[in-house]
Amino acid sequence: MPQTPHVEQHFTGSEFIRDIVIGMSDGLTVPFALAAGLSGIANSTAIVITGGLAEIAAGAIAMGLGGYLAAKSDAEHYASERENERYEIETIPAKETEEVEQLLLSYGLEKAQSTLVTNALRKRPEAWIDFMMRFELGLEKPDPKRALTSALTIGLSYIAGGLVPLAPYMLISKAGSALIFSVIFTLVALFIFGYVKGRFTGARPLRSALQTALIGGLAAAAAFGLAKLIS
Amino acid sequence: MPQTPHVEQHFTGSEFIRDIVIGMSDGLTVPFALAAGLSGIANSTAIVITGGLAEIAAGAIAMGLGGYLAAKSDAEHYASERENERYEIETIPAKETEEVEQLLLSYGLEKAQSTLVTNALRKRPEAWIDFMMRFELGLEKPDPKRALTSALTIGLSYIAGGLVPLAPYMLISKAGSALIFSVIFTLVALFIFGYVKGRFTGARPLRSALQTALIGGLAAAAAFGLAKLIS
Repeated sequence: MPQTPHVEQHFTGSEFIRDIVIGMSDGLTVPFALAAGLSGIANSTAIVITGGLAEIAAGAIAMGLGGYLAAKSDAEHYASERENERYEIETIPAKETEEVEQLLLSYGLEKAQSTLVTNALRKRPEAWIDFMMRFELGLEKPDPKRALTSALTIGLSYIAGGLVPLAPYMLISKAGSALIFSVIFTLVALFIFGYVKGRFTGARPLRSALQTALIGGLAAAAAFGLAKLIS
Repeated sequence: MPQTPHVEQHFTGSEFIRDIVIGMSDGLTVPFALAAGLSGIANSTAIVITGGLAEIAAGAIAMGLGGYLAAKSDAEHYASERENERYEIETIPAKETEEVEQLLLSYGLEKAQSTLVTNALRKRPEAWIDFMMRFELGLEKPDPKRALTSALTIGLSYIAGGLVPLAPYMLISKAGSALIFSVIFTLVALFIFGYVKGRFTGARPLRSALQTALIGGLAAAAAFGLAKLIS
């Protein structure tokens, strides 16, 4: 299965923006929640900062490398499915022809019209394969050079997002006060991020802003509560 | 843009399996790395366990709720794009007809054949809209009831994955020894998980197993190293 989210034509941003959204979305949320959780049990901010930075490093690598391999694997998956289609078209053309006809009939074409289309496709095997990739499988050709850019964008966005909730702990020595500033800063950042994300993804920006802040807030509250409960 | 990964027809698993993969993939990796990082600075396992559980709670909520909202937003996105297409077909049918013809011409059909297809589509506006959704936008109709199941599956898989690296810290009181067992257990779990994932996604299982273990190992090593460096 393709492991990267499928981006379609009406999307007003680019794949670059999508990678920033993927990285920053988790980067703002998970280190925020973890820092809140650790601040609930640690008296000094040192453990919050160290734990938070360790998490950012781990998350950035896991997400960045994960994105790299997902993009690579999408490209391989596309190539292998294309080979399958080519093989099927060469070995069982009658069955593949019938698949195309069935598809076209389901869109209201008549038998004679479907046959005209399939005859045209049969004359151009490469176009036929492309047609099957798109129509039967719903797959689009991935850009093979995207993997590295994608990995770096996701990883760096995760780091940028993760430093927002940690910054107050670096500037304020008392964990309790730092937590309050971290919550305020991060909720504002999540709100703005959710708003901008909504504009790019075509969702209602205000609702996207509120949802993004809500997820981050709930995750942080749960982490804080659980840590308090255990310690 | 659709925020859930696009699953196509040749995928041998289901969306349920995909959600397990999404949750467990991060669940095995991030708490593992964080626990390794925390064990590098804490003498007792208490801080590792508390921090780890806080992270699991935060991650499960962030990913589960994120998955819920992504599925909801995909459904809304599909509905809104479908309304756009309907509007375009009703208001500028000539332009939409030409778009279909251009698409078909690019697959090697001749003008006269394309016209037959577009004429057939024009007689059935609903089928025409479906055709545009699939062909022009590459969108598939999402299941509106999936959001809740998806959220729970992702969240619970994250928790299940996250408890693997933490278990040794709960059973062994010395952080250093617990780390060794955590690394062994989790790398084995990542290897098996990567293998099974590869079987389901059509990737080469052994390669998927090695890659998954590598990402987890690198993330944990980075977190451990960074934590040691700071403290």
